[in-house]
This record gives sequence, structure tokens and C-alpha cells, in this order.
Amino acid sequence: MKQSSDIDLHHLRLTDPFWRDYQRLVRDVVLPYQWAALNDRVNDAEPSHAIENFRIAAGRSEGEFYGMVFQDSDVAKWLEAVAWMLCQQPDDGLEATADGVIELIAAAQQPDGYLNTYFTVKEPDGRWTNLAECHELYCAGHMIEAGVAYYRATGKNRLLEVVCRLADHIDGIFGPGECQLHGYPGHPEIELALMALHEVTDNPRYVALARYFVEQRGSEPHFYDIEYQRRGRTSHWNNFGPAWMVIDKAYSQAHQPITQQETAVGHAVRFVYLMAGVAHLANVSRDEEKRQACRRLWNNMTQRRMYITGGIGSQSRGEAFTGDYDLPNDTAYTESCASIGLMMFARRMLQMEADGEYADVMERALYNTVLAGMALDGKHFFYVNPLEVHPAAIRCNHIYDHVKPVRQQWFGCACCPPNIARILGSLGLYIYTQTDEALMVNLYIGSELTIDVGQQPLTLRQSGNYPWDEVIELTVDCPAPVTTTLALRLPGWCSAPSMVLNGETVPLDVRKGYAYLSRRWTSGDQLQLTLPMPVRRVRSHPRVRQNQGKVALQRGPLVYCLEQADNGADLHNLRLSGQHVYQMEEGEGVLAGKTVIRASGDRIVAGGEQPLYRFDGDIAARQTQSLLFIPYFCWANRGEGEMRVWVDEQPPSAPGR
Amino acid sequence: MKQSSDIDLHHLRLTDPFWRDYQRLVRDVVLPYQWAALNDRVNDAEPSHAIENFRIAAGRSEGEFYGMVFQDSDVAKWLEAVAWMLCQQPDDGLEATADGVIELIAAAQQPDGYLNTYFTVKEPDGRWTNLAECHELYCAGHMIEAGVAYYRATGKNRLLEVVCRLADHIDGIFGPGECQLHGYPGHPEIELALMALHEVTDNPRYVALARYFVEQRGSEPHFYDIEYQRRGRTSHWNNFGPAWMVIDKAYSQAHQPITQQETAVGHAVRFVYLMAGVAHLANVSRDEEKRQACRRLWNNMTQRRMYITGGIGSQSRGEAFTGDYDLPNDTAYTESCASIGLMMFARRMLQMEADGEYADVMERALYNTVLAGMALDGKHFFYVNPLEVHPAAIRCNHIYDHVKPVRQQWFGCACCPPNIARILGSLGLYIYTQTDEALMVNLYIGSELTIDVGQQPLTLRQSGNYPWDEVIELTVDCPAPVTTTLALRLPGWCSAPSMVLNGETVPLDVRKGYAYLSRRWTSGDQLQLTLPMPVRRVRSHPRVRQNQGKVALQRGPLVYCLEQADNGADLHNLRLSGQHVYQMEEGEGVLAGKTVIRASGDRIVAGGEQPLYRFDGDIAARQTQSLLFIPYFCWANRGEGEMRVWVDEQPPSAPGR
Repeated sequence: MKQSSDIDLHHLRLTDPFWRDYQRLVRDVVLPYQWAALNDRVNDAEPSHAIENFRIAAGRSEGEFYGMVFQDSDVAKWLEAVAWMLCQQPDDGLEATADGVIELIAAAQQPDGYLNTYFTVKEPDGRWTNLAECHELYCAGHMIEAGVAYYRATGKNRLLEVVCRLADHIDGIFGPGECQLHGYPGHPEIELALMALHEVTDNPRYVALARYFVEQRGSEPHFYDIEYQRRGRTSHWNNFGPAWMVIDKAYSQAHQPITQQETAVGHAVRFVYLMAGVAHLANVSRDEEKRQACRRLWNNMTQRRMYITGGIGSQSRGEAFTGDYDLPNDTAYTESCASIGLMMFARRMLQMEADGEYADVMERALYNTVLAGMALDGKHFFYVNPLEVHPAAIRCNHIYDHVKPVRQQWFGCACCPPNIARILGSLGLYIYTQTDEALMVNLYIGSELTIDVGQQPLTLRQSGNYPWDEVIELTVDCPAPVTTTLALRLPGWCSAPSMVLNGETVPLDVRKGYAYLSRRWTSGDQLQLTLPMPVRRVRSHPRVRQNQGKVALQRGPLVYCLEQADNGADLHNLRLSGQHVYQMEEGEGVLAGKTVIRASGDRIVAGGEQPLYRFDGDIAARQTQSLLFIPYFCWANRGEGEMRVWVDEQPPSAPGR
Repeated sequence: MKQSSDIDLHHLRLTDPFWRDYQRLVRDVVLPYQWAALNDRVNDAEPSHAIENFRIAAGRSEGEFYGMVFQDSDVAKWLEAVAWMLCQQPDDGLEATADGVIELIAAAQQPDGYLNTYFTVKEPDGRWTNLAECHELYCAGHMIEAGVAYYRATGKNRLLEVVCRLADHIDGIFGPGECQLHGYPGHPEIELALMALHEVTDNPRYVALARYFVEQRGSEPHFYDIEYQRRGRTSHWNNFGPAWMVIDKAYSQAHQPITQQETAVGHAVRFVYLMAGVAHLANVSRDEEKRQACRRLWNNMTQRRMYITGGIGSQSRGEAFTGDYDLPNDTAYTESCASIGLMMFARRMLQMEADGEYADVMERALYNTVLAGMALDGKHFFYVNPLEVHPAAIRCNHIYDHVKPVRQQWFGCACCPPNIARILGSLGLYIYTQTDEALMVNLYIGSELTIDVGQQPLTLRQSGNYPWDEVIELTVDCPAPVTTTLALRLPGWCSAPSMVLNGETVPLDVRKGYAYLSRRWTSGDQLQLTLPMPVRRVRSHPRVRQNQGKVALQRGPLVYCLEQADNGADLHNLRLSGQHVYQMEEGEGVLAGKTVIRASGDRIVAGGEQPLYRFDGDIAARQTQSLLFIPYFCWANRGEGEMRVWVDEQPPSAPGR
């Protein structure tokens, strides 16, 4: 298959009832809120200081750098989110604010192209001395992504020029030359950013630099060790002992070259960011070895180390993967940013290979963990997205120290909130993939897209009420007939999809999860895709010990959960009936407009006066109880309470027990 | 009830087949091995340096102190274990070695009575400046216990004099006086030791000092804060940030006075050591408020926060309790020393109140966690005793960092191995309680005890094959008839005990878990107690979410578990049959002589090629499998493998599934 490229978001208009609300939230609430946060104007929230750091670096303000070594990236992500939103809808005020920030950033750039407020303000002599720990290339990557997005959105090249100078500067510093550094980032990100920069500049040096970073990774002797000795064995972090990021190379996926790596390891965000860049690079450069590595690691991650919610990272320590089939629900880390990175990786895999499996995972991550990362009010965020929460245990057992039972206003390490804003802003990039072969419809999100097929314009209108309703309508509009192929994804969760074209059922020509339909399209052609959405019970692989004997409910792409607010405390004492009878209802209060699921079940009657341990014969009494499941992404919007995704099930042969 | 006192171990001879082996192991293997360890003569083990520290403090050697700030206590515990063993069987060589150590300790004592090698060698100016963190009173307590035990065992008062001088010195330092310190230990231990010292010296000042330490605890302003300011805010430890032991007062049970405390909190060992001292003090001083506190905290601990194995401490962080009904099996801490301390607390509760509940818990801790702390070879030890182990997950998930899948030779913090030795050595103290009312038989351990009733000697011989067999024989031997009461414990796990006296069934006169039998005993009187031991399924309180739907097997006092060695990997895929059919077998190999349980069950067939998540209808295939349960205390004696105590159960109505 030939190379695909990104959709121009100016030609895509979101009309989806579900996502329009989110887009509005991002525009009206999230971006202004986060702008206030970046400027330290949110009461009772962790301070950010990110804008002020740029002011200081630009010489416009006096003071000290404050925040994480990667604080700059929050500003870059915000700018990127703004850019994507401006594609959707012009906003002079917002654009003027962004232009102002860009001028500030340009002023903070050093004469040689270097750009990083931490090192400029705090450690001017420390530049490029600690790649393992200090996120310089990561921040550069985010700024490059912002520059590319802002250029795409507005056509303005002010920030693009800044980041090209930055990239050129980096290109001079790093490389195989004798006077160059042979290093690579502790936190991948610049790889995918350089590939994006190449897309708008067509400059092959950016691909070469991305390749250099990817191929240097894991080579021996390890660059992290070399620079560690060179800088006198100092450490920026001391979380788990000095120099742990240097020592634990798998944390950064630096333990071996990516083409030799067999399993998804280390910091989950680093892993998926890296793999997104590697996939893009493999695709652009037709690199079969890297493509195989991408597929191998994708498979290991999604088939052994991913939660049903599309969350990744089974442990808090190192925000990292653990091992195959080790998926604890209550101590999970499953960072919002990791699932965003997973979507980024999936999108690039999909661009390389039109396989619905990638889109299935992308959708799973989007509709569950990514959405769960933000409250329905757009102002509160989860960094960690567990699948089971016991507030009482969180308060007393330190294995839950990383888990918050309710979303927070902001974080000292605020990577997640602006990342959610930028992924929601750029959602259009994920809906469609345009290849030489077909226009792939990956996600069912109401929208109007205009593309050129050959020299001919073609507009595709998608409508429906996904993820709640099963029917998706696609309408074609074109001034002249256009011969092309549409490829509609048939989600893995749907067992009986069907398609009707202009009133007539079409046999499905399915290849790797997509139904292909080639024809001469004329205006008014109408395609109706029906994806029946019965409630389905999901079971885990038998090696997942944490879910043994349990089921999760999924309807369409949505994973459901039980909350204490609807079902009372001690959710572990509930069992779902063996009967597959469900009642769809509309939620109430903050859940209005959302489909909730009612099912029958029972509950063990727990009395505090029972002994801690009791002998046989004395089986706990049960009483029937109606269970209410809500979409996982809506959890924790009604105060603190228990939540669980995986629930016990009554034995099928004893429905009444 | 009137006050009880300890049995004189010179008049108790252990004859029990089960425990004789352990005693022999302690004498022939554990004590010599630990002596070698204390002298750093064990290859590949963590160094101890404990004896060398005393040599340096005594001026007999040059060098630096090495080890934990409480390293002295390892020597004291070893001496105490030696003392108890000498009660059982004279051993001139061992006694000579011990005498030598005692001379060394005496030489290390400072002219003013102070005794602690860490401060004497390393921080002579730091004495008594850091009670919260530095274990001076804890080490003193252990040395006092050793002095008391050695005096009781040998009649020699050399060490007793040393520890009396030490206690007198401490009595001068601490107290309500203006020039005295108003502090109390960060790690309780001296309280129970002072009560023991009072027992042999009859010196009321020791009781008063114990009371001072108990009553000062938790008073405000907090002494730990005062001394922290006074010493310039320095910290000895930095595990969880500076001064965390000062800040987290509940860790040391210093957050409030014990008489106000409602729940078992903080470091589990500190808690039970403290409570053992408080119970002894309450008993001796007839202090009703303290007695109530003991009962209240005992109930909270044993009815809300104790594992079925008698383990306590649900979390690694702080080796501590968490909250009610929070009993994770795989991340449990359940330190060996904590269960030893639990036995110590239980014994003192039993001396205060003849309630079989205390003995039930004591027995549970002894036969399960305490025994599990040591390998069957007597040379390897567990510090942490989980109820569920997945070696593969331990290697990759940091929530298991504290869990070892196999026993270790020694530890840098070596509190547990010598503690196991001293509890096994002093086992005789736990078997019987002599009160003015009765001779209580708490544990069924074959032994020969001679006591005086009034002026009359009476010998009681106990025999049987406990914990494997259900019949216990008690025979009386006395030169002249003796009128007294025997009280035999009827274990909580036994639903149908029966008693036969000289061939005739005796109706049971049961009060609080003991069957009382008062009569005029004559030589040859024979009492047969039968405690039927069917295998019983144990269920947890419904609030224990970790055990929901699961059962554990218990037979007699022994909790059983599944091991990978017998049942294959993926133990979570096994289910125990709903049929209560069991076959008792004798174990093989290292399990020879031990009763194992065979039961029918089934297993989910796990193939690596199944998807991670699968939709309804596709229920995993099961195959029947015979399950072999072994006593929990025997686990991990056959290499590394999975283990679990709580197992899934087939639904009773669908035995074949």
C-alpha cells in the first residue's frame, strides 16, 4: 500500500453530537482554563509557572525557573491544542493570544536556535549534558509539534521557523560526527515530531535525524552511561535512588535497539511516543525491519499488557509496563497520556497498514481511558485511571498512593490535561486515513470531510449518534461523479455489521476489518452502516489472574463499570446475573444523554458483626439487586465512591442463587 | 481471676513428635547457624557484625560500628533463645559460649550502666537524643529479656545484674522529673521487658517505669517533635522522606494515648510488642482502663485486620496495618516477627483472662505464619509471609518488591530469624497457664509438666500427634491425690470436641472456650480429649474484597495452600470442587510425615494464543484436575513457584462444570 497522509483539518468539520460537546468543552472551558493554569490564575491548584518561565528566559521578567524540567511542554501542548481548534473554527481572540505566546517563545529562543527555559534560566552550562533525565529533546519535540500544527492551522510560519531553527540546531549537536553527541532522548517524542516537521517542510534532514535517534537507541556502550560519567555522576531525579533513570535503561526503552526488543517495557508513555515515531519513520522510509518491530511490539502490548479500557502501564513505579498478563485493576497506573500516546501509535500503524485491529485499539483507548481522563465539566483531570477503586483502602494502604478517587484540578506534573486538549482538538486526524487505495473511515464520528480524489473534490458526510446508536449514515456530495473506494471499519466488538447503499443491502467485501466499497460515486449516494450494539460480556485471557471468574460489560466501543453512587458500597459483593437480559436507559443528572445499562444481579449481605473468618456451611446470604452500569469514561463525576469494571458473575446454571 | 504466672521451663519437658523436631532444629541447626551469622561466618549471607560491634564497644577490637541501629538486639534474641533451650536440655558448650557473650556485653556496658554499641561506638554524644528513630530502648528491652531468660534458665545473675544496672540507668534518665526526659521508645519492647524484669526481681520501680513509658505515649506536645527540634531536626532514616518516623506518629502508635486508641495502626511489630507490655502491666496493676484498651485493640486487630494465617500488617510501606477488612493476599507484609509479637500479646491476654479466643489466635499464628517464617531445613527465613505468590509478577511488578518467593539465608535487617529461634525455644511458656483457679492447657503439644498445687507436686503428661491427629491423651502422676482444676482449651476450629476420663465420657463444662474439670486427681488418671479434624472450608467476612468468592482449607489449626510444585502453574485457574470430599495423604520428600489434602477440582485450560479479551459465549474450557493442598507453613520448600491460600470454588449446584 502506498503512503497515506494526514487529513487537512480545514476540510473537516465535526458535526457529531457526542464529540461536538467535547470540542465545545475544549474551546470554551478547557483551553481558557488551561491558559489560566499556565498563567497561575487557578485558585487552589498546583502552580504551573510555565508562561512565566518563558518570560524569564526571554528577559521580560525577573525570577527563578519553577516547575518540572519539562514544564515548557505544557505550553507547547496548549499551543498545539489551540492550533487544532483554530482549524475547526476561527477565533481571533484565541489566535491573538497564541500569537503572543509564540512571540514570547521566539524571544526565549537563544541566538543559536536553542530553546528550553529550564536550561536557559537555571542551568545555562548544563545543556545536553543529561539526555537520560532532563527532557530537552522531549520539550523540543512538543514545541516542534506545536509549530507544525500552528502552521497547518493558520498558515503562519513564525513558530514553524522557530522550531526549524531549533531542529537545525539539534541536528548540528547530534549525529555520528566526531564533534557531535551520539545520544538520544531519555523521553522519546522528538522522533515523531521530526517526522511531522518533515511532512510540512519536506526536509529530509529531519527524517535522517529521527532515524539517528531511533537507531542510536540501546546501542552500546550506552550513551546514558557515557554522559553520566562525563557530567560527574550527578542526577536530576532521585525518586528511586540516584541515577535510577541511567541505571534502569528499560525504563526509557534504551536497554536494547528497538529492532531487537521483544516486549513492551518501561515507562508506558515513553514507549508509545517512541513507537509512534518509529512507525512513522518505518512507513516513510519503507523500513521493513522497523515495521516488523512495530508490529511485534504492538502485538505484545495490545495482546498481553493492555487493559480493556485501552489503558497501559500496570504499575505506578516508573509509570510502567510490568509483564505479560499482569493487569491489576486497583493498582493500575494507566496514565491518561499513555492512552493518548497509544492512539498516536495506532494512527501511524493504521497509516502504514489498513488493519482494523489498530483502529479497534485506538477507539478503545479514546472512548474509555482518554475520555475518562477529563471530568464531564472539563475542569478536572485524572492522571491515573484505575479499573477498580476503593476510596477507604486508598486512604490507608500505600499501594494506592498514586490513585486519586476523584479528578484533580491540576497537577505539579501537568502532562495529562493539555494532552487531552490536544488529542480532542486533533480528533479529525484519527477519523479518516486517506491512502492511494481508499478513504478509510476509522472512527464513526459525525463530520463533513472534503477531499480531492485525483483532481475531483468529494465531500463525505457522516452522521449518526455513535457511540450510543448503531446506525451510521454516510452521504456523498460531489459536483461530478468520482470513482474511488471507501473502506468502512467493521469494529471488532461488532459481530453482525451490515451495509445498505441507496436502499439496497450490499454484500461486505471485508479485508482486515474494513469493508471496501469501490464505485463511481455521485452526489446523493447514501450509505448506511449498521453496527448492532448488544451488551456483550467480555472475559479476559485465563492468564490474567486479576480477572479470573469476572466479566466486564461492553456496548459498542464503551466499557461499562459499576459505581457506588448507583449500586451502594462493597461493589465486590455484587454479582451479575447469568441471564443476559439488559435494559438500556438514559442516565440521570450529569449522565443525561448517556446510555446506562440495567441488569439483574445479587448482593452478599454484609453485616459488620459477622466474624472475620467463618467455617463451612455458613455461606453468606444473598439478596437480589438490580445493577446499574455506567460508561467507564463517566465514572467519578458524582463525588467519591467505589468503582469497578470487572464484576463477578452468577454461575449460569444457578441463576437464582 | 487471680494473677497467673509463667511456667518454670525446668519443670516442663517437650516430648511432642512435631515440636521435638523443631526444638532439635533450633538446638542443632538454628542456634549454631545464627551464632555463625552473628559472627559473620556464613558465606553469601548479608553480614551481621553484631558480635564485633560489642567487641569494639568493649574495647576488645578496633573498627567501626556496622549494621542497623538495632543490631545489638540480634545478639540479645540469640542469647534469649539459648537460655530457653538450656532450660530444656543442659549444654555446657553452648552455655560457655553464652557466658562468653555475656562477659562481652558486660564489658561493653558503660560505667553509668548505659549499654548500646551503636551509640557507644558511633555516636557517643547522641545518646537519648532520638527515641523516635533510634531503638535504644528497644535494644535495652531485648537485652533485659535475655538477662531475665538467662537467669531463669541458668540461675546465673551476671547478665541480670547488667540489665538491672541498665534498667536503673534508664529509670534515672526517664521520668516526670524536671531533669528527666519525658520520652518513650519509637519501637516498643522495653515495656514488656520491664514487666518481665519485675517478675524476677520484684522491684516495683520497673513496673512504674513501664507504666511511665505506656502512659507518656501519645501525650501532647509530642515528645518526638520536642526531641526533633532539640537535636536540630536531623533524621536517622530517610526511607519515605526525612523525619517520617517523627511525622507519622501512628507508625509508632504515638499518635494518641493507648487508652484512646480505637484501631490497630502503624507498624505491626511495634503494635503487638507494645500491647504485650500493656496487657502485662494491666494485669499486674489491675488497671481496668488499660485492660479495656487491650481488649478493644485486640478485637479490632483479630476481627478486622488479621490474615487467616495469623499474619498481621497488610502493607509493605511502614510494615504496617492498613484498614478494616483490607487484606490483600499478594502484597501482604505479614512479617514473621509480627506474628511472634501477636503470640506474645495473646499469651499475656490469656494470663489476664482465660478466654480460648486468645489461644485460638495464638495457635493460628504459631502453626501458620511463625512456622512458615523458617524453612524446614532451619537455615532459610521469610521476613514477609504472603498468602499468594506469583514469581513471574514479583520479577516485573514493583508492588511486590518486598516479597521473596523463596526463603533467604539472612537479612541486613535480621530481626526475624533469631526471633523465631527464641519463640520456639520458649514454646513451653505458651502451652500452659497456671492460675489460682486452674491449670489451663492452651496448646496441645506433647510434654511433661510438673507443678505444685498448694504444697503438692502434680505431673501432667500430654501426648498425641497434634496437629495431624485428633486424639490428645493427658495422664496425671502425683505421689498423693491432688484436688485441682484442669481447663482444656476447645479450639474454635473444632465443632465437636469430646472428653473421656478413665474410659468414661465426661460432659463438657465449657466456659469461654475451655472445658473445666475439677476433681481429686490420683496417679494414673487418664483424660482423653478428641478434637475431630475434618477439613473445613473457611470463608472471609464479606467486606474482605480480596477473598470474595474464595475459600481456604483448614484442618485442625493448619491452614492449607496450593503450590505450583503439586498443581502446576496458573493456580488462579484452579477451582475446588463443590463436593466436600477430601483424601488425607502423607506428603512426599520434604513433606514426609506431614498430612496433605487431596481434593477434586478443575482448571481453566489456558492457551497463549487466546486473545486478551474475548466476547460472550466464548467461555474458557475447563478440565478436571485433582488438587493437592499442603500446610501453609511448608510452602516454598521445593524451589520457586506459585502459591495461594484462597482458592476459587466451583458453584455447589454445578459440580461437574
